[in-house]
Amino acid sequence: MYQTDKERMTEKITAFSKYGDLGNGGITRLSLSEADLAARADFKQRAEALGMAVVSDDIGNIYATLPGEDAGLKRIVVGSHADSVRSGGNYDGIYGVLSGLEAAETIVTEKIPHRHPLTVMIWTNEEGARFEPAMMSSGIVLGKFEKEKMRAVVETGGAVTFGEALDASGWVGDAKNRLNQDDYCAYFEPHIEQGPVLEEEDLQIGVVGGVVGMVNYDIILEGVSSHAGTTPQSYRKDALRAAAKTILELWDKLGALDSKLVFTTGEILCKPNIHTIVPGYVKFTLDARHQDMGVLAQVVEAIENLPKDVYGCRLSYEEHWGRKTIGFDETLLGYVEGAAKALGYTCKRMYSGSGHDAQYVSEMLPSVMLFIPSKDGLSHTVVEYSSPDQIWEGANVLLNAVLEADKAL
Amino acid sequence: MYQTDKERMTEKITAFSKYGDLGNGGITRLSLSEADLAARADFKQRAEALGMAVVSDDIGNIYATLPGEDAGLKRIVVGSHADSVRSGGNYDGIYGVLSGLEAAETIVTEKIPHRHPLTVMIWTNEEGARFEPAMMSSGIVLGKFEKEKMRAVVETGGAVTFGEALDASGWVGDAKNRLNQDDYCAYFEPHIEQGPVLEEEDLQIGVVGGVVGMVNYDIILEGVSSHAGTTPQSYRKDALRAAAKTILELWDKLGALDSKLVFTTGEILCKPNIHTIVPGYVKFTLDARHQDMGVLAQVVEAIENLPKDVYGCRLSYEEHWGRKTIGFDETLLGYVEGAAKALGYTCKRMYSGSGHDAQYVSEMLPSVMLFIPSKDGLSHTVVEYSSPDQIWEGANVLLNAVLEADKAL
Repeated sequence: MYQTDKERMTEKITAFSKYGDLGNGGITRLSLSEADLAARADFKQRAEALGMAVVSDDIGNIYATLPGEDAGLKRIVVGSHADSVRSGGNYDGIYGVLSGLEAAETIVTEKIPHRHPLTVMIWTNEEGARFEPAMMSSGIVLGKFEKEKMRAVVETGGAVTFGEALDASGWVGDAKNRLNQDDYCAYFEPHIEQGPVLEEEDLQIGVVGGVVGMVNYDIILEGVSSHAGTTPQSYRKDALRAAAKTILELWDKLGALDSKLVFTTGEILCKPNIHTIVPGYVKFTLDARHQDMGVLAQVVEAIENLPKDVYGCRLSYEEHWGRKTIGFDETLLGYVEGAAKALGYTCKRMYSGSGHDAQYVSEMLPSVMLFIPSKDGLSHTVVEYSSPDQIWEGANVLLNAVLEADKAL
Repeated sequence: MYQTDKERMTEKITAFSKYGDLGNGGITRLSLSEADLAARADFKQRAEALGMAVVSDDIGNIYATLPGEDAGLKRIVVGSHADSVRSGGNYDGIYGVLSGLEAAETIVTEKIPHRHPLTVMIWTNEEGARFEPAMMSSGIVLGKFEKEKMRAVVETGGAVTFGEALDASGWVGDAKNRLNQDDYCAYFEPHIEQGPVLEEEDLQIGVVGGVVGMVNYDIILEGVSSHAGTTPQSYRKDALRAAAKTILELWDKLGALDSKLVFTTGEILCKPNIHTIVPGYVKFTLDARHQDMGVLAQVVEAIENLPKDVYGCRLSYEEHWGRKTIGFDETLLGYVEGAAKALGYTCKRMYSGSGHDAQYVSEMLPSVMLFIPSKDGLSHTVVEYSSPDQIWEGANVLLNAVLEADKAL
């Protein structure tokens, strides 16, 4: 089995952590911001130094390609993103890019023979933190979103459109460079877990079988706003009290469905939200995810069966959006799992609860993801952390899985 | 018994409803806004037409005084406010001013003999909707707030200070015109109930014995923010779930204390409040009011005894502010109750759950309030309503109670 260089891998993470550095351990590296452009420039320089040819497509996605021995073969691609959320960490996204680069660097420096060209790519605006929605560029490439509509999206809290930021970035290339089936044969996306399972179960590698399906609802309680000092309790139709009751009821009902189901009431809006007024209106979100769409159907049923009157308030709901469970490619999964085991790493098959570009790519190319542990399960925060050993082990699995694909495909 | 003129009383309410008219039945008449200045100008014109002398003090409070037969006697004053909340109604505040003016008009037109001078006054900025806090001017007069600090208060959502608005209003008068003990002997404040009790119990007049005491707390739940898709339910420390549990527990515990206790969880703050992130922090308010401070002590005890750990989240609380129960003057209460009964109106003694300028004034002068019914108990909303009969009956009680005080004091 081949091994990447642990120090070199750590140096890459450390070096990129300065692009958008907040001085508190984390970064804000919004898509196409100065910090993002600095990270992109560094990536280009490092890739070219390895002899990789760097091009971009019309949405600013970057492709750095190392030639293979057989020029007629399709490329194997490792992809992820360089942008972060506001007050994010040093691993989410960039780890996939840099472990790909480290795999390429190992192949180059150790002159490891490989038949297919190897591409390492950066997706533009995966987080959606500056320009909504998330996974914008892979969504455009896969026909989920219209490019012109996306170019018109205005940044959150600002005035610049995605198109303007793109044009100013210097990264607008040719549309024919987009990821496609004619030139590529397999997609790998390494990532941090963003959850506590690997750490809690003391495992080194997650072999990601797919991305779980998801339903999103708004649940609305409508009562009557009235004066906090003058309305006896028995006359009240308090929408926040009704929402509290409904949140606990959802925990009871959904909690009984399946231990792998995750559900979240993450956002709440209360009106008028004044401490001297009984709340007349509360809306909260419900996000539920499970790999088995049958379990999600039970979630929907539970929502539909919620009582329509809660403490005198009218309950209603709106389906917001959802996605079906995505399954990754079994052959590629075998390479990842085989590499992990051959390296002597503990691993398990698991599903991703969060969305990744791989879920769109999987509709076009055989795709797979692998996870490394996240300390305390935390991500999208400045304290996001994976250790030098963990990031190195993930890169080792990636390198060997890619080389296995290179032999077999 | 004397009677005011129902049509004239209704005309006053209708006329003043155009100052700040929203076209939907309600008004926005923020303190010292153009609409408020128009209402003040109309008040001055009407008062002067009745032969009243109109002056203002250094905080823009307006005093319109009708001479009595005995120039040596102190004045009886009827006061309330002309400002409204945003999207408020046509009765809260202005009803007290206009019923006072109607009482004066009845005395003038019917040449009713009276010994004391009668003053009708407008308090500046009672609502606090433009300049916080509420009851600002009566608070300044009673030494609760420092005038210079209040003049520096910047309007909510804008840039103008209270002092600037005051100076531009044309209503800055002499500080020696302020309400005081040397020149005044009794304070009456008619108001709408702002609650459902009179209507529900089919009563015409509320004889307001005082303003209930109050405690205000922030209750805080601290959990851990984590990813909605990747954190198994059993690992979560969801602050919104914990808040929901705590809200219901407060309803259980406080609901068992006393049927006259009112308590409200009106305002909630959830962080980060994103639908894909488990809430890590929730703060909500608790406002509790009761005339018996012993019951409020039990509320405080219940808060202190809340569990400190709720679903893995740390519960803490902060006392925000409170007020002791204020009792109004028994002699004046007797005049109000006596007038209502002599007029053949049904009435009951009750406490005000909301704050009014009278609560500050009661520390300086014998004070009293009377309530008329509010349709559906609603106030601080455009649908706030009291019928022509109700506003007239309140004015009749006021007139006769004032005349009774005039005889006795």
